[in-house]
Amino acid sequence: MIKGKDGSKIPRVVIERLPRYYRYFDWLDNQMEKLSSKRLGELMGASASQIRLDLSYFGDFGQQGYGYNIKKLKQDLTNILRINTQTNIIIIGVGNVGRALTRYRAFSRAGFNLNALFDNDPSIIGKKINSIKVRDVKDLKNYVENNDTSIAIIAVPKEAANEVSGILLKSGIKGILNFAPIDLNLPKNIPVENIHIIDKILALSFMIKKQ
Amino acid sequence: MIKGKDGSKIPRVVIERLPRYYRYFDWLDNQMEKLSSKRLGELMGASASQIRLDLSYFGDFGQQGYGYNIKKLKQDLTNILRINTQTNIIIIGVGNVGRALTRYRAFSRAGFNLNALFDNDPSIIGKKINSIKVRDVKDLKNYVENNDTSIAIIAVPKEAANEVSGILLKSGIKGILNFAPIDLNLPKNIPVENIHIIDKILALSFMIKKQ
Repeated sequence: MIKGKDGSKIPRVVIERLPRYYRYFDWLDNQMEKLSSKRLGELMGASASQIRLDLSYFGDFGQQGYGYNIKKLKQDLTNILRINTQTNIIIIGVGNVGRALTRYRAFSRAGFNLNALFDNDPSIIGKKINSIKVRDVKDLKNYVENNDTSIAIIAVPKEAANEVSGILLKSGIKGILNFAPIDLNLPKNIPVENIHIIDKILALSFMIKKQ
Repeated sequence: MIKGKDGSKIPRVVIERLPRYYRYFDWLDNQMEKLSSKRLGELMGASASQIRLDLSYFGDFGQQGYGYNIKKLKQDLTNILRINTQTNIIIIGVGNVGRALTRYRAFSRAGFNLNALFDNDPSIIGKKINSIKVRDVKDLKNYVENNDTSIAIIAVPKEAANEVSGILLKSGIKGILNFAPIDLNLPKNIPVENIHIIDKILALSFMIKKQ
């Protein structure tokens, strides 16, 4: 359970919205100094009360009738999300998606260091992608056990995803970002965020056709 | 507003969960014939009542005390999501992410035809990626107006995303899948689904560090 400032549990949806707040304050910084929760809500498509409630888990940011100090809130969110600290990540599966992620500069800009790549394809193992060596997935457990690694990105086919996540669990990984189109079978104490591209386009397609 | 079987508005979160139901029924098909909402809830990490409510928007699928007929529900969801019909898509921005998406086979397997690519980089325009020609983004409006195109995937840098989405809006696009790390400034009647990779990894990172 992740607790907020006052000791109450922070709902998962609120945590998942936090980076979006950061994006808005990063964007608004240098444009203006103060912003009311009402105006922020209009920008973000949310109610002022939801914004006040969401942010209240993390601290006492606003002053009634005065608004949020953008520069301060951006700095506080930078610290809360630890954007200035370094987080070590690895990618398992360097097919199409995994390979693209090795070149995803937004990771390093946000403090995520890509330290290792893994695959099970003998024709790729030992080669370098963006100057990072592709290791044999057989060495995954040993690697995570012996190298500071916080987040593993799973970009293997769905048939292999649960086997890989099982190895990661045993090796003591802290969290998983999963691109495989399947829900991983993991205990609840391992945080997982899913990026299910096909779910998104299917939902979009449904909305289009029903309108 | 998107209406369900009984005429009531289907909440957006329910629509966004629909592809996940499809994935589960696709997986369970050939494994078993019937499944109770309770058991499905255990598998999906949701309550039986939420599952019954979610699915009730789309039809009368289950029978109290009898469970869901997996094969039938999978077929119904295939029809509801129109997985067997073809949907034309285009990608704007063939940098790192856009280029990976041109090779994303899950799109074609789910009935999405990638018909055109656009970029503003003169060194890429006119070349082919995966046998699809990269067109000048200047021709985007004209292309969408004259070719049946349902969904545009935005994979340009965030600084260009709103300009591109403005062109798409004027050209009559039906929906947008947005990979740029910014919320697009569009009227509410254009469905947009966002894939914000950085938001996901930042939320994950927060959860890891707070545990």
